[in-house]
Amino acid sequence: MFRREETRTVHVGAVPVGGGAPVSVQTMCNLPPHDAGAILAQAQGVARLGCDIFRLTVPDIEAAKALGKARSASPIPFVADIHFDYRCALAAIEAGADALRLNPGNIGAAENVRAVARAALARKIPIRIGVNMGSLEKPLAAKARGGEISPAEALAQSALAHLKLLEDEGFRDVVISAKASNVQDTIAAYRLLAERTDCPLHLGVTEAGTLVPGAVRSSVALGILLAEGIGDTIRVSLTDRPEREVLVGMEILRSLGMRPPGPAVTSCPTCGRTKVSLMPVAAAVEEALEALYAERLAAGGAKAVERFPRVAVMGCVVNGPGEAKDADVALCGADGFFMLYVKGEQVCRVSEADAARKVVEYVVSL
Amino acid sequence: MFRREETRTVHVGAVPVGGGAPVSVQTMCNLPPHDAGAILAQAQGVARLGCDIFRLTVPDIEAAKALGKARSASPIPFVADIHFDYRCALAAIEAGADALRLNPGNIGAAENVRAVARAALARKIPIRIGVNMGSLEKPLAAKARGGEISPAEALAQSALAHLKLLEDEGFRDVVISAKASNVQDTIAAYRLLAERTDCPLHLGVTEAGTLVPGAVRSSVALGILLAEGIGDTIRVSLTDRPEREVLVGMEILRSLGMRPPGPAVTSCPTCGRTKVSLMPVAAAVEEALEALYAERLAAGGAKAVERFPRVAVMGCVVNGPGEAKDADVALCGADGFFMLYVKGEQVCRVSEADAARKVVEYVVSL
Repeated sequence: MFRREETRTVHVGAVPVGGGAPVSVQTMCNLPPHDAGAILAQAQGVARLGCDIFRLTVPDIEAAKALGKARSASPIPFVADIHFDYRCALAAIEAGADALRLNPGNIGAAENVRAVARAALARKIPIRIGVNMGSLEKPLAAKARGGEISPAEALAQSALAHLKLLEDEGFRDVVISAKASNVQDTIAAYRLLAERTDCPLHLGVTEAGTLVPGAVRSSVALGILLAEGIGDTIRVSLTDRPEREVLVGMEILRSLGMRPPGPAVTSCPTCGRTKVSLMPVAAAVEEALEALYAERLAAGGAKAVERFPRVAVMGCVVNGPGEAKDADVALCGADGFFMLYVKGEQVCRVSEADAARKVVEYVVSL
Repeated sequence: MFRREETRTVHVGAVPVGGGAPVSVQTMCNLPPHDAGAILAQAQGVARLGCDIFRLTVPDIEAAKALGKARSASPIPFVADIHFDYRCALAAIEAGADALRLNPGNIGAAENVRAVARAALARKIPIRIGVNMGSLEKPLAAKARGGEISPAEALAQSALAHLKLLEDEGFRDVVISAKASNVQDTIAAYRLLAERTDCPLHLGVTEAGTLVPGAVRSSVALGILLAEGIGDTIRVSLTDRPEREVLVGMEILRSLGMRPPGPAVTSCPTCGRTKVSLMPVAAAVEEALEALYAERLAAGGAKAVERFPRVAVMGCVVNGPGEAKDADVALCGADGFFMLYVKGEQVCRVSEADAARKVVEYVVSL
């Protein structure tokens, strides 16, 4: 459906980013930075949902050590998030970080940038330049607020200025992000970057908010950009658990056919025609499918969920049998019970209480 | 940002649809169709959130009477959803429906279509043709499943065939929808319709699923289409309460600048740098703002929330003070407490426990 913009390829651990590689999904650790055990458990948890890359802040040297410890047992690569102190970057590289997120203009003198670039080059790890409307350099922020340039232009100029600092050191394995909390500014900034650089782009709306508004804002911005072929890796920022960020990110990619379908069901909103309790049944079916998906992914990797069964939970005969034809297993509500379909064929009648369990039985047997 | 496709204008009660009118938000009643009191309460509830148009199913004559009773006290217009029985359409028109959703190919003989078209014309009410992948005519569905034509082409052909039946009766006040549960098919179908007709388009992903996946799928599809200038009215279908459908629909429009900002906050995802409990504070602030928004909307209409205060809830100093500059009121987390900003200026220090209450105090005082 979409022609991808051509970008160079970098590698975050074993995960290729850019150059036409599948768009990867990232999240960020929200735990205290010194608790290696908890960090590892969170990385394992998000990996089970399909997360490809895990980022964590490294505000001090002790955090770099925790990163190293957790990384050694993690199934997915770690990006060290660095602000202000280049020594944390060096310590994170030393400890085994797979990539850095760092804005070279924020770590002081040119020799600091040089030291980081050399260490990253020696370990062959990429650096993401991550500019953000809330932490833009003061002169650019003032120009944008004064209307002299657009917010998107300010973001793009900032990112490209940071990029120049790394390129001046001969460092080219760079990913760029340019995030605003405003969806339109975010879209415009990435369009500018896609024109002006061939660095892979990490997409995200920053501080997108709580679960539902945050999912909407992220889906609109990332959906529009990805449909234009822009974006090589994504992170959905939510004021919620990292697991939810991954679920939203995966669903964005799935909706555009950039990942195979996952455990989320097709289900109807119900209306005055509905004569079953659909909402709890849909929720129970989806919860069971999510567990099954995570189990298969953990056991067999991406290959094991490439053709995950598609399930529909429908309220009535208007669209139910039609949707059942496009699903592996479907429920179609009648008067106080459901008809269960497998591959579009009616199989049996099930009660509301048994519906979710029966669906999962058939899904497992497929 | 977007050039809107040119469409003809119809009116659903006092709400213009098409012809460059603001994109309106719809939802559908999920209550039993004979309980006028409950239907009215739901219509009033969604109107308080910004919903413009309320649809309800009319499966029998008694439901038409309930529609009429609830409509007479409703602040927003009602669309009667009709399947199969043209007498329900006539009864709904008679009872005071502001519009019909009806596929003329599904109500039997040509004289039935003629009777409905005449009655709608006499009352000057529009008809939405709503085709849906799950209830496509069998020959078109078979062609699409067999790969002879694309699903999008099948949806578009079906809609245009229904349209011809109405146009043959001289009826032109038609809105069209063509929904699939698959996001890509939905996008492709509406792109075809935008090329082939100037009827206003009602956008939606059908059976989009439970809250979060459904919000993502709807936001991706509607975001992409609206950004291309396609779409005159929207309905988000969720296996959840109609109120949530409205919140998601409104947020999609807001994210693209098609509605003024609402009560949803800008808030950060937190990370290892965060030293406050941000998630409950963000949730409490947002809940209070939603109540304030609904109150102002109910008291003063859309005008009263045109410049609703923008609030940011941020975890630390990296992006906090920057985001505070673009917010009317902001919290920025420090070590166990927040700094409160008004119009970008530090005002006072607040505890976690007091933070939400203090934000609302300042918001109300603006």
